[in-house]
Amino acid sequence: MAQKYDVAGLGNAIVDVIAATDDEFLLTHNVAKGVMTLIDEYRAHQLLGALPDGREIAGGSAANTMAGLASLGGTGLFVGKVNADRLGESFADSLKQIGVQFDTRMAEGGPQTACCLIAVTPDGQRSMNTYLGACRELTPEDIDEDAIAASAVLYIEGYLWDEPSAKAAIERAMAAAKRAGRKVAFTLSDPFCVERWRSEFRELLDTRLDILFANEAEAKALFEVDSFDEVLQAMRPWKGIAALTRSEKGCVVARGSEVHVLDAAPVAKVVDTTGAGDQYAAGFLYGLTRDKPLAACGKLGALAAAEVISHYGARPEVHLKTLAAEAGLI
Amino acid sequence: MAQKYDVAGLGNAIVDVIAATDDEFLLTHNVAKGVMTLIDEYRAHQLLGALPDGREIAGGSAANTMAGLASLGGTGLFVGKVNADRLGESFADSLKQIGVQFDTRMAEGGPQTACCLIAVTPDGQRSMNTYLGACRELTPEDIDEDAIAASAVLYIEGYLWDEPSAKAAIERAMAAAKRAGRKVAFTLSDPFCVERWRSEFRELLDTRLDILFANEAEAKALFEVDSFDEVLQAMRPWKGIAALTRSEKGCVVARGSEVHVLDAAPVAKVVDTTGAGDQYAAGFLYGLTRDKPLAACGKLGALAAAEVISHYGARPEVHLKTLAAEAGLI
Repeated sequence: MAQKYDVAGLGNAIVDVIAATDDEFLLTHNVAKGVMTLIDEYRAHQLLGALPDGREIAGGSAANTMAGLASLGGTGLFVGKVNADRLGESFADSLKQIGVQFDTRMAEGGPQTACCLIAVTPDGQRSMNTYLGACRELTPEDIDEDAIAASAVLYIEGYLWDEPSAKAAIERAMAAAKRAGRKVAFTLSDPFCVERWRSEFRELLDTRLDILFANEAEAKALFEVDSFDEVLQAMRPWKGIAALTRSEKGCVVARGSEVHVLDAAPVAKVVDTTGAGDQYAAGFLYGLTRDKPLAACGKLGALAAAEVISHYGARPEVHLKTLAAEAGLI
Repeated sequence: MAQKYDVAGLGNAIVDVIAATDDEFLLTHNVAKGVMTLIDEYRAHQLLGALPDGREIAGGSAANTMAGLASLGGTGLFVGKVNADRLGESFADSLKQIGVQFDTRMAEGGPQTACCLIAVTPDGQRSMNTYLGACRELTPEDIDEDAIAASAVLYIEGYLWDEPSAKAAIERAMAAAKRAGRKVAFTLSDPFCVERWRSEFRELLDTRLDILFANEAEAKALFEVDSFDEVLQAMRPWKGIAALTRSEKGCVVARGSEVHVLDAAPVAKVVDTTGAGDQYAAGFLYGLTRDKPLAACGKLGALAAAEVISHYGARPEVHLKTLAAEAGLI
C-alpha cells in the first residue's frame, strides 16, 4: 500500500483545561498539589465549574507527539476517542488546524470527552486532575486498517493499555501495521503504567515492537533494575531501536551494538517539563521517517523536547521545522 | 614471569603546591584559568613566592593514580624522575609511605625536582603551572624491563610524550610489556597534549594500546570531532577498552560492541576537581586487575574520582578500599 502518513498515533484524546489559581483553591477543592490524579465525571464537572477562566488546549501524550510531528513538517494521523460534545469538537478542531488527520468516530452519548483540569499556582506548580471519559470507549472498530497500513510508523501510547477495549484496538492496529511491513513504536508513558503492565510490555517488546521510547524511570521499571546501565545491558539482545531519554543527561539511542550517547539540547530556562517525552518522540520519529541516521533522530528529539520545556504547555510554540533547519539537523 | 605488581605507572614525578586563590590572583599573575601551563624555572620561583600558603603534596598524574591504587589495596610501581633535592626526597617518601614501589634513580645536579603550582579558585577550578625540571631527564635506562614484565598493566601518562627521551623510555616499557603479554594502558592527559601529538597518539591507539583513558575534551581532540557521540562512533572499530570520562555526566566504558553508560558517583560538594581523572584510572585499573566486569571497573573509577573531588588535593584522603567495600563494589 502506498504511504499516506509518516506516523499513525494511537492515544488518549484529552482536552487540557489550564487555569491560574491560588493555593486556597487547591485546599478548598481538595486538589492534591503538583501531581496527576485520576478523577470521575462528577468530580470533573465540579472542578470545571469552579476553575476560573480555564484555557482549553487539546492534549494527550500521543496527540501532542502528532502536533510536534506536524510542526516539523511530517504527516500524521491521530486515532483516539472523544465524545461529540463541545470539548470533543474543540479537540478535533485543534488537530485539524495544525494539519493532523483525525477521523476517529466520535462517541454519541455516554461519557463526555476526556479532560485534564490543571490548576497552576503562582509557584509554577501544576496540579492535574484527569477524567478519562470517552477515551475509555476506544474499540477495535475504531481502527482503520488501511490507514494504519498506509503509515510508515504506528506509534502507541502505553497509557492506552489500561483499558481492555483500547488494548484490543492496539492489537488490531499492530497486526495491520505488521502485515503491511510497517514499523511499530511504543512509549512506556509512565513508571506506574509500567508497574501495572510489566510482563505484557516485556512480551510486546520481545514479539511486536520495532521502536521503544522510554524515559529512565520507565525503563528501569520495565526491567526492574536500579541503574541506567543495567537498562542498556538488558536491552542489548533486542533487535529494535531503543530511544532512552534521561532529562538533563540527554538520551541514549541503541540498535543492537550501535549505541549513541547524545547530550540534551541547551535550554535557557526550564519552565514546564510537561510534554518533553512526547516532543522527543515527535522529533525522533520525524528523523526516522526521513531516513536520518539514529544519532540525528536523537538530536531532533532533543531539539523538540528542549523547545517544549522552555514554556508552559505540551505542544511546540514555534515552528519546529525552522528550529531544526537552523540547528542544521534537516 | 610471575606477577609482582598490578600496575606499573610511568609519569612525571611532580610535587604539587596547592593554594586557594581568587580570580583576581589569576589575573594579576597572568595565570590561564582551568588549564595546565608549562612554565620555566624562573617563573616557577616567581609564582611560588606569590602563592599564598602553598601546601606541598607529591603529585603528578600517574603517581596520583598509583596512590589511588594503593589506597584500594592494589600493588603499584611508579617510574619517574626526580632530583636528589629536598622536593625529590619528599616525593620519594610520599610514595614509600603509601606502599608504592619507587626506585627510579634520582638525578644528581641538573634541573631541580618538578613542581606544579596549583591555584584553586572558589568555583573549584584549578589552574596549573608546571615546571617539569628533573622530569625531563627520564631516559630508557630508567626502565627496568623485568619490573614492567612483572606488572599486569603498564599505565602511561600522555604528558611524558612531550620529552623525546621519556618517549623513548615509554617505547622500551611498552615493548617489554608486550613481550610479556601484559596490557598497555594510556591516558591522553590533556587536550593540548593531544593537539601536540594527535597523529602519534592515534598510531599508538591503533598499534599498541589495550586500554585508553580520556576525558571528553581529550577524546574530542584526538578524533577532531565536536560531540561525545562522534567520539564513541570513531572508537567503534577499536578492539581495546575505552574509558571515557565526562565529569558530572559520568562515564562511558566501551569494548567493541559492549557499551556501558555509567553515572557519576554522588558528591555532596565539589571542592577541587584536581586528580579526578587520575583517581578514576586508579579505580578502573584496580577493578580490571581484579577481573571485575567493565561496568564495575567504571563504577570503581567513579567512586575514587568522587572522593578526590570532594576535597583539595589530588590523592585520596580516606581509605578507598573501605569506601569501595561500603559501596558493595569489592
